[in-house]
Amino acid sequence: MIGKNKIKQIKSLTQKKFRLKEESFLVEGDKNIREVLKSHFRVKELFATAEFISENKSLLPKAEKVTETSAAEIKKASLLKQPQNCLAVCELPHQTTLPQNLDGFCFFLDGVQDPGNLGTIIRTCDWFGVKYLFCSPDTADVFNPKVIQATMGSFTRVKVIYTPFDALALLANEQQLPVFGTFLEGENIYSTPLPGNAIIILGNEGKGIREEVAKHVTFKLNIPSFGQGKEKAESLNVAVTSGIICSEFSRNKALYSK
Amino acid sequence: MIGKNKIKQIKSLTQKKFRLKEESFLVEGDKNIREVLKSHFRVKELFATAEFISENKSLLPKAEKVTETSAAEIKKASLLKQPQNCLAVCELPHQTTLPQNLDGFCFFLDGVQDPGNLGTIIRTCDWFGVKYLFCSPDTADVFNPKVIQATMGSFTRVKVIYTPFDALALLANEQQLPVFGTFLEGENIYSTPLPGNAIIILGNEGKGIREEVAKHVTFKLNIPSFGQGKEKAESLNVAVTSGIICSEFSRNKALYSK
Repeated sequence: MIGKNKIKQIKSLTQKKFRLKEESFLVEGDKNIREVLKSHFRVKELFATAEFISENKSLLPKAEKVTETSAAEIKKASLLKQPQNCLAVCELPHQTTLPQNLDGFCFFLDGVQDPGNLGTIIRTCDWFGVKYLFCSPDTADVFNPKVIQATMGSFTRVKVIYTPFDALALLANEQQLPVFGTFLEGENIYSTPLPGNAIIILGNEGKGIREEVAKHVTFKLNIPSFGQGKEKAESLNVAVTSGIICSEFSRNKALYSK
Repeated sequence: MIGKNKIKQIKSLTQKKFRLKEESFLVEGDKNIREVLKSHFRVKELFATAEFISENKSLLPKAEKVTETSAAEIKKASLLKQPQNCLAVCELPHQTTLPQNLDGFCFFLDGVQDPGNLGTIIRTCDWFGVKYLFCSPDTADVFNPKVIQATMGSFTRVKVIYTPFDALALLANEQQLPVFGTFLEGENIYSTPLPGNAIIILGNEGKGIREEVAKHVTFKLNIPSFGQGKEKAESLNVAVTSGIICSEFSRNKALYSK
């Protein structure tokens, strides 16, 4: 049974101000919950069906409080259209500070707004072993339940750090890291030699990369379009772009793996 | 002014049975509407603000009926959280039949469920000049307003054809086209020589490619993962996968373009 007040509290976690006030965020979906129970995140309360509990016994000690509840009760508290067998209230972690060193390539998101896009980018980073995902302060919040949902558990592994680009530019400068961005007038990504270490900027869905961030770009890239005729797609979705860029930056080491 | 009955009719177009009954589908968003006004689709009714009308005069003759209306009225009929300046009711086209010849590579979606994923895949196909997107009958419907929205106008160019895989397998056989699919146990995509013409299968978000479709695959591919440690991402989002595959299949011709 999930009490009325608890349901209200859980639903309030869609809003950032309540996440900050309650120092909590919501995790839903069986896979996401299994991942968070294996992670370093503090799981304050877990609501789960008898079935989920019996199937995931080894993971449960990680949750500070486990309440067995019916699927119908979970549905009442859930934000999903198709609720699954569990939901968890986790402790909102403190903001991670900038790392001293960047190893490999990483992204800076310049105002990505759509929670689904942010979550999918986090999942893509996890697949390609990208450790850090930097975000401008106006990028969607990683602890928005829709973002968490779209990461499919990858939010437990990729470090998402909110920072104005200036701070990252200093780091890039110190470490002599090249800064890449995609632009229509950029160089063909397929014929550009790509380094192992780099910062790659991805822009807002509608407006692209802001002027004040673009000025830090040391190399402009372009993913060539093959649309034919006068009318064609104007751009790629930002999460798809992140995937193609990860693929290209990983390609050399990937070529001889497996 | 959009009448009450019209609003009801527009809202009913979220459901496939009403799209079939009304032989209509809904297009929203300024960019989508501009694209549909330039396309071969029949635009039965356009509702637009004075501003949109004055800015897009040259495109209006394509609409069979134009009604000037306030942004507040559009909001009442809209399915979007942030409605824009126009919406259009278009004629549902007849199902496109299988082409005689396939030129280039194309996808077959085996039960992709999420409308956002389908829309993003259509947009990605448009960018890479993929002409045909084949879909299993249980894949999301291209005329679902959420799919149309995510295509950013690309639904006007990419031919989306619903077909059981068997029919496509016959075509592949006749034309001696290889059939690719991504599998965890597949060969590294980066070290596999990829042909110009091919059918590529993308599976359902949770279940992947069905057994009865998988048996037609002549070459299994894998996008290598670089996630480290015991826990890592189990899979990539299907739209991101489509982007990486398009990128790899286009890479050779792309290498020397631009």
